Amino acid sequence: MSSVWGKNIKISIFGESHGIAIGVVIDGIPPGIQLDIEYINKEMKRRAPGRNKISTSRKEGDNFEILSGYFNGRTTGTPIASIIYNTNQKSKDYEIIKNIVRPGHADYTGYIKYSGFNDYRGGGHFSGRITAPLVFAGAIAKQILNKRNIVIGSHIKSIGNIEEDSFNMINLDKSLLINLTNKEFPVIEDENEKRMKEYILKLKEEKDSIGGIIETAVVNLPVGIGSPFFDSVESRLSHLIFSIPAVKGIEFGAGFSITKLKGSMANDEMYVEEGKVKTYSNNNGGVLGGITNGMPLIFRTAIKPTPSIGTVQRTVDISIMKNTSIEIKGRHDPCIVPRAVPVVEAAAAIGLLDLMMENKLI
Amino acid sequence: MSSVWGKNIKISIFGESHGIAIGVVIDGIPPGIQLDIEYINKEMKRRAPGRNKISTSRKEGDNFEILSGYFNGRTTGTPIASIIYNTNQKSKDYEIIKNIVRPGHADYTGYIKYSGFNDYRGGGHFSGRITAPLVFAGAIAKQILNKRNIVIGSHIKSIGNIEEDSFNMINLDKSLLINLTNKEFPVIEDENEKRMKEYILKLKEEKDSIGGIIETAVVNLPVGIGSPFFDSVESRLSHLIFSIPAVKGIEFGAGFSITKLKGSMANDEMYVEEGKVKTYSNNNGGVLGGITNGMPLIFRTAIKPTPSIGTVQRTVDISIMKNTSIEIKGRHDPCIVPRAVPVVEAAAAIGLLDLMMENKLI
Amino acid sequence: MSSVWGKNIKISIFGESHGIAIGVVIDGIPPGIQLDIEYINKEMKRRAPGRNKISTSRKEGDNFEILSGYFNGRTTGTPIASIIYNTNQKSKDYEIIKNIVRPGHADYTGYIKYSGFNDYRGGGHFSGRITAPLVFAGAIAKQILNKRNIVIGSHIKSIGNIEEDSFNMINLDKSLLINLTNKEFPVIEDENEKRMKEYILKLKEEKDSIGGIIETAVVNLPVGIGSPFFDSVESRLSHLIFSIPAVKGIEFGAGFSITKLKGSMANDEMYVEEGKVKTYSNNNGGVLGGITNGMPLIFRTAIKPTPSIGTVQRTVDISIMKNTSIEIKGRHDPCIVPRAVPVVEAAAAIGLLDLMMENKLI
Amino acid sequence: MSSVWGKNIKISIFGESHGIAIGVVIDGIPPGIQLDIEYINKEMKRRAPGRNKISTSRKEGDNFEILSGYFNGRTTGTPIASIIYNTNQKSKDYEIIKNIVRPGHADYTGYIKYSGFNDYRGGGHFSGRITAPLVFAGAIAKQILNKRNIVIGSHIKSIGNIEEDSFNMINLDKSLLINLTNKEFPVIEDENEKRMKEYILKLKEEKDSIGGIIETAVVNLPVGIGSPFFDSVESRLSHLIFSIPAVKGIEFGAGFSITKLKGSMANDEMYVEEGKVKTYSNNNGGVLGGITNGMPLIFRTAIKPTPSIGTVQRTVDISIMKNTSIEIKGRHDPCIVPRAVPVVEAAAAIGLLDLMMENKLI
Repeated sequence: MSSVWGKNIKISIFGESHGIAIGVVIDGIPPGIQLDIEYINKEMKRRAPGRNKISTSRKEGDNFEILSGYFNGRTTGTPIASIIYNTNQKSKDYEIIKNIVRPGHADYTGYIKYSGFNDYRGGGHFSGRITAPLVFAGAIAKQILNKRNIVIGSHIKSIGNIEEDSFNMINLDKSLLINLTNKEFPVIEDENEKRMKEYILKLKEEKDSIGGIIETAVVNLPVGIGSPFFDSVESRLSHLIFSIPAVKGIEFGAGFSITKLKGSMANDEMYVEEGKVKTYSNNNGGVLGGITNGMPLIFRTAIKPTPSIGTVQRTVDISIMKNTSIEIKGRHDPCIVPRAVPVVEAAAAIGLLDLMMENKLI
Repeated sequence: MSSVWGKNIKISIFGESHGIAIGVVIDGIPPGIQLDIEYINKEMKRRAPGRNKISTSRKEGDNFEILSGYFNGRTTGTPIASIIYNTNQKSKDYEIIKNIVRPGHADYTGYIKYSGFNDYRGGGHFSGRITAPLVFAGAIAKQILNKRNIVIGSHIKSIGNIEEDSFNMINLDKSLLINLTNKEFPVIEDENEKRMKEYILKLKEEKDSIGGIIETAVVNLPVGIGSPFFDSVESRLSHLIFSIPAVKGIEFGAGFSITKLKGSMANDEMYVEEGKVKTYSNNNGGVLGGITNGMPLIFRTAIKPTPSIGTVQRTVDISIMKNTSIEIKGRHDPCIVPRAVPVVEAAAAIGLLDLMMENKLI
Repeated sequence: MSSVWGKNIKISIFGESHGIAIGVVIDGIPPGIQLDIEYINKEMKRRAPGRNKISTSRKEGDNFEILSGYFNGRTTGTPIASIIYNTNQKSKDYEIIKNIVRPGHADYTGYIKYSGFNDYRGGGHFSGRITAPLVFAGAIAKQILNKRNIVIGSHIKSIGNIEEDSFNMINLDKSLLINLTNKEFPVIEDENEKRMKEYILKLKEEKDSIGGIIETAVVNLPVGIGSPFFDSVESRLSHLIFSIPAVKGIEFGAGFSITKLKGSMANDEMYVEEGKVKTYSNNNGGVLGGITNGMPLIFRTAIKPTPSIGTVQRTVDISIMKNTSIEIKGRHDPCIVPRAVPVVEAAAAIGLLDLMMENKLI
Repeated sequence: MSSVWGKNIKISIFGESHGIAIGVVIDGIPPGIQLDIEYINKEMKRRAPGRNKISTSRKEGDNFEILSGYFNGRTTGTPIASIIYNTNQKSKDYEIIKNIVRPGHADYTGYIKYSGFNDYRGGGHFSGRITAPLVFAGAIAKQILNKRNIVIGSHIKSIGNIEEDSFNMINLDKSLLINLTNKEFPVIEDENEKRMKEYILKLKEEKDSIGGIIETAVVNLPVGIGSPFFDSVESRLSHLIFSIPAVKGIEFGAGFSITKLKGSMANDEMYVEEGKVKTYSNNNGGVLGGITNGMPLIFRTAIKPTPSIGTVQRTVDISIMKNTSIEIKGRHDPCIVPRAVPVVEAAAAIGLLDLMMENKLI
């Protein structure tokens, strides 16, 4: 029981990448909301591979079909179901996996967990493709938040050792975030795109891969959402973000580096400006005691390098429990970080929408 | 609705630090389990302040009383309720807070969220003291896991810039972990204790504070617990860990540093040994696709410096919305990291017990 | 947020009767189970209208398509999604509803709840058709229970004032229950079928309708499933049964008539037979303290008469808030009781499977 | 995992009747609500035995202590914990139970479920006494609903075969309901009290017991609360009502008798009056499609006769699996129906408050 999440909104994800279809059921979206189908398509495209040469040449059809919950251009208030039929599968690329498990993937763990009955093709239910329904749901959540001027955006903070500067955590304009969501490779300083892409292409030739860090910001959140303890903003968001395959770490505000600061430096001292409480610094990333304080919500997500690489790797044939090796053929992404950006944003949007609804602000 | 967590075990935490009592109700613990009350007391003591000079001189009574779910030395299978009466409160230490909010604390956010009706004394429901019931519940969870040879232990990886080496992520003996849980200041190399403590004392004199990183390991987990997506091991554990006040980041395995590695370096290649599948490296920290793979589960938690410092800080009087300053009196901890260790372990134990029960292994 | 249910199994239902498709996502079914597709089809047919002359001539296509969670003839352990495309809709039959609300239906309440944005056609999300996905999920649950010799079956205890005797609550053979599930009009004594059907046809000619009582039994449940208080067997089952449109009451064992018995008559005295504890009577219907005691689980469900009748009815035009009248055209069922039987059994199967899983018996 | 309920409010009940204390944690009550402690006491007294001669002479102390969530006379918005210490236990009255199970009680089922480790004394966690915390929580819920003019009240519709007329389901004045909540033995026609009480006393002398039917009404609920399917008003309320020990049936509106009516009689035709939609009849009991329609919500609860009777009963000694008999000593209630009334109302209040919060009306 792992593919249902939420309190005020319930998200139910299903599908294997080589099954008939993947999809999502979203329950709890209020009635009467005009869905911008174009916007949803745009978000889905950000996630899809095959758009450019740094990603895989494998094209995934991501045309979704809304089956329910949508009538005369608006949400009905009843569950919204959306499916995407799987089309461009080459199952024979994956025949080899059945017994020879790929390092870094969930082949072995999935095999043990599902007693061998899981659909192993293309990673089955573990495939990155399953993030497509999440992006669909996130696109709806983002629209609802946007209507309240709450904007989510991210940039690629680093690919391997190539970094760019963080957001300004105190003054963050929503237009910067909106611009980033329109970029195919979202970086703040354009020259960093070239450096990062060159590195990725180099690794592609080496049949290797690399990961990176995505930095996400949310502006204009009202003060007071989230709750102490189990429903803190960090708890809810990390729960969702860690649901995304390949995530290995998350940090808020100054994150791990806050542990190097003294309290006198780390504390965000406060002041009043135009009737609002603000802070001089934002090491806490917009959350205190699990509750938003009105400053930009900032967090960073660590994405590990794509496990599917073309080099020979040492592994095991689990049907006979013997050591062997594997050389993964097929068309794989050397770096999924750009494609992970809309997924991270989708997860954040869903979590924040749920919290906003809990606070009866939506 | 924030203080209830869990699926197979449900934890319900209540209390304000200056209210009458704090406590927890734990529903779902199987019947017939012999509780080691001494062990629970020992874990509670690890959390309590006032034990030595690096922490606060403020003593907290942590004597718990089990009200239900426990009969003739064993759990009954019905809910276990445990309370701790608040005794050593000096409310006048906290009178000043009502309108003048402390930087880094949840005073402002709590005020807004609860419309001014929250119990602000001593941080109310936001107080670190509320972690005591969590440690109680964790102590029970740990005992149940121990019976299956699953052991949790942590060391203080760093205090400020003073660091010690990480665990050996491949060969980790449970005896090392058990030894650490018996240390008042858990470090692997004893000389690091001296260096870290000296730094903490220095900050105490400066009326400042510092944070740190706790590295936790769990050994002997069976393969296959956790589920892809929303119930991944990382999702469940991070949800719980971020419920602990002062946590600002969490990472699994190589964590954020995995983003600097190429796939060929990051992937944990596999081999068979004595009928078990193992990995040469453990950058994934014992979890793949959200599911345990049998290697040690390793994660790191970032604890920010204690917000309560004695230096003058700029802040706001929210009753009149004017800038002011605050100088916090009273007895405060310059570093809560050693006391946070059992809380982090408790959270991990509860999350893992819940997952073990979901897998019907308990 | 209303269409997700469950703890160990999570059922997520979606769809409007005149939308594109209806369906269900079932999460938590264990891996490796061989699904009997024929059996599922058979159960779906029991629910569908248009099979004989006592029901409506409106044919509903109930061909389902499994999109995920099923591979090589067995469940994968990941979510099972199944959809049914809506085909035989005559939307113009329903145009009139938009403002003139039908008595006994959810037109008015749905309009208010969903602020007018609901899909009103054919009852939208309130339609009886939405029970089709529930029957699909129930068919899977029934198969799993059957494998443990747990059998569910029902008979029509009454249609209007025409009654037949109850089950023998003490000795109930599973073969009787199995036979009933194979009957198109499930009654114990065949002559009652004739009497009941004649009455229904008479009402059909009068353009009127009638309800009835379904009596359901479950045999071979192990002792000890269910929990006191909020997860009692009665709580779980009634929650699900009342989710079915048209249900107005539920009673267990002797039900409401137990209130006429003295304690000395009502108490089910116990004895031992062949190493099992049995009761001389079964007024408690197989449940004590919310927990099964091994005797047959018996309950009765009250189904109200179909609200869609052809006679003229006084009602309101909600767009102008004026009194008016309505004469519903179209093809409607004079009695949905026979078709409700598999739905009630499906709900019971799902609830019991969830409880069995909670007890780690599955 | 059985003692936690709710979505927007979470209720967590704990305690055994002969343990140290029983209690409840309520999470989700909004901040700033003034609690009327007198009112809570009054509700608790309605439930407690020993008030008059028709009930048991066993006095239960029901003095509760609020441990958290309440500060300066108002709710803080954080969890409210309330406990009641067990005082008047005579454990030796219950020694006999350990192996010789009482018919009609949960001794046998509890023994099997909890593997013999349950606290059997006085029914342990199954005791009627555990309803005291439920009444506490219900009293808070009722106050919040009252502030919105929503009033809940009940009368004893029947004790055994002695009946009184139902409520007027169309015109129901809240003052009638309020009067009933102030009566120790709530009947509409006073002469029925005498008849019913005489019968109960007669059974007390015979060492026997009797049950009855409670009819409850709720007026002034807004239109539109509840959702189709799994969160219908009937689903939520029945789930809670069946959590109360001794409940064997529940019906809404005309209930089981609606199955005898033709559709033309059963349908509640509608009309407009002073800008509100009303119905000429109310066979649906104020709920359509799981959603309230503004008419009085009416339901009936069947309470079985108290299992604890003084006559000799045939039973089993489960330690040796042999037939035996039992003669229950001690002081027991011949009829718990009057004491069950506030418990049923508490359950309804909690369920409706949760639904109101889901609709963001509170």
